[in-house]
Amino acid sequence: MPVGTLASVKGVPQDVLEELGVEILLANTYHLYLRPGVETVRRMGGLHRFMAWDRAILTDSGGFQIFSLNDLRKVSEEGVAFRSHLDGSSHFLSPEKATEVQIGLGADIIMAFDECTEYPADRGRVRASMELTARWAERCKNYFEAYKYEVPWEGSGQWPVVSGQYPVPSTQSLFGIVQGGMDTELRRESAVRTIDIGFPGYAIGGLSVGEPRELTRDIALSTLEHLPSDKPRYLMGVGTPEEIAQYAQSGVDMMDCVLPTRAARHGLLFTSEGKVSIKQARYAQDDGALDPACGCRVCQRYSRAYLRHLYAANELLAQVLNTVHNLHFYLTTMRRVRAWIRAGDGTGAGATRT
Amino acid sequence: MPVGTLASVKGVPQDVLEELGVEILLANTYHLYLRPGVETVRRMGGLHRFMAWDRAILTDSGGFQIFSLNDLRKVSEEGVAFRSHLDGSSHFLSPEKATEVQIGLGADIIMAFDECTEYPADRGRVRASMELTARWAERCKNYFEAYKYEVPWEGSGQWPVVSGQYPVPSTQSLFGIVQGGMDTELRRESAVRTIDIGFPGYAIGGLSVGEPRELTRDIALSTLEHLPSDKPRYLMGVGTPEEIAQYAQSGVDMMDCVLPTRAARHGLLFTSEGKVSIKQARYAQDDGALDPACGCRVCQRYSRAYLRHLYAANELLAQVLNTVHNLHFYLTTMRRVRAWIRAGDGTGAGATRT
Repeated sequence: MPVGTLASVKGVPQDVLEELGVEILLANTYHLYLRPGVETVRRMGGLHRFMAWDRAILTDSGGFQIFSLNDLRKVSEEGVAFRSHLDGSSHFLSPEKATEVQIGLGADIIMAFDECTEYPADRGRVRASMELTARWAERCKNYFEAYKYEVPWEGSGQWPVVSGQYPVPSTQSLFGIVQGGMDTELRRESAVRTIDIGFPGYAIGGLSVGEPRELTRDIALSTLEHLPSDKPRYLMGVGTPEEIAQYAQSGVDMMDCVLPTRAARHGLLFTSEGKVSIKQARYAQDDGALDPACGCRVCQRYSRAYLRHLYAANELLAQVLNTVHNLHFYLTTMRRVRAWIRAGDGTGAGATRT
Repeated sequence: MPVGTLASVKGVPQDVLEELGVEILLANTYHLYLRPGVETVRRMGGLHRFMAWDRAILTDSGGFQIFSLNDLRKVSEEGVAFRSHLDGSSHFLSPEKATEVQIGLGADIIMAFDECTEYPADRGRVRASMELTARWAERCKNYFEAYKYEVPWEGSGQWPVVSGQYPVPSTQSLFGIVQGGMDTELRRESAVRTIDIGFPGYAIGGLSVGEPRELTRDIALSTLEHLPSDKPRYLMGVGTPEEIAQYAQSGVDMMDCVLPTRAARHGLLFTSEGKVSIKQARYAQDDGALDPACGCRVCQRYSRAYLRHLYAANELLAQVLNTVHNLHFYLTTMRRVRAWIRAGDGTGAGATRT
């Protein structure tokens, strides 16, 4: 899932996302809650209508951003008090409030409000945090069941015209999140408690928070075993092209990562021949395609020399074209993995509902 | 002609420019001379191949930017010494050098190196400046005639594939530029001298340099009368949608202006209902199209509320979408004017060769 933090994949128009084959994108509740605000999105008919995107959308719960962007947050049983990174204003998100906000934003899949445990943390702290997340998950589900029909989708009017190829369900899907830090036993316990509450899909959160890559992998794979394979299993915030291919083959059904889009804006491009840092002077007069094996509209038209010039001259188009290429590379990687799985070459048996 | 300063119309991929109906764009010699440098562009086969654009390109001579971006320039009979606005390095452009650079860049239309007279200026200063421009024009033509076959077009290889619908001429066209400040008599004299030298097209330079709009118009129209109507007449650096429509109907064949693209990046949008400053809070929950009468891909898909959100949140996509809309508005304006002229409704009799 490409990341569209503020209801936009930075620099890429929605029709290009469609052409790239993006079937679902992630938007950030924390950022949208601050700007433009949930009431605006709700009144505009929800995120789909607001951003003119009729394919699937997932919103995170806002928890991760509160923990990563706010030094002055205060966590209690009730929820989290924090200050906006934009203007310092005070806010409070609880499991109920985060769910209310996500119902108002109107994505297809919404996430339970969790505490993303910091790394490193001692076992007592990780256990307490995991148990808080479990109690919050139950509150999220209770709120969701009571208010799930308040989505802003109905009566959404005539404009803009949506293609209608994607059927609109009557409610959203609320996914639970497994925490438990880097402790396999606490992860197992978190999985069991989350499954006991019952959700239509399960995420593995609290990884990619600074730990070594091997540890991410070990914890992700051991947690995966405890999650039902007939429901979507979503590994949050991962990863490189190699990692997403490996995780998908291991049974992960959904992943999101800012890497393809953020790296693109910093001139780091993924190709079939490895990573290319397009800012390097060695590409200044290289008239070959960025990736000769790539069929994207960037590689089909422009040279490395031109892409290097755009980046070196700080031209807007650099960010646009680089993002289009990296997304194409990621999406092609996933299409290839799906084909492997379908052909029985993969080891994963995960349900792919997206 | 949209402006593509550094061989890119900021934020808009070339295929979108094609779809918008852009038939010719302007690139800035001064900027390209500094970055990526003429040798790079020449080795890459010229601007067309470098930027993967097989429609027409015009380069200015670099004179205007030297005069507007450099406080430390020193003008002599030989040429202009100046320092780069990027790194302070010293450079020298003469009529011969500016022509050599433009031959190396390989646009279809190149411009004589002129001195853009500052405004206001006394008559003696304007006369001296105009006469210098006339002497430089002759030197440009002499250099061009001697070296015009050194364009980098031939042997341009196999990649990227150009559509081939636009035939490649054997040489460029060098246009002369009329100066003379805000003095109609000096403008007439400049026109006569430039025509005496002989060019396949003539530009009116030295306007839009801070003078009142009415004065721009008076000088432009009076100068136009002295230029042959069977050759392209190019008014440089103009203007608003109303102005370009009026000038075109008065016989101007070519215009360039950063207004549609630069204004777009500042959230100022041109519509059939007048200008819209999309940053305004009044649009925050406006779910109508930016311009209901507009057929561009932006107005067909997105709401004012979404465009306002993108701009307010400083999203890259704001600049992309706003630019696409403004270019569409300008190009549609010109298509309408052409239709009027073809139908005999216009008052202009200018040759439209682009």
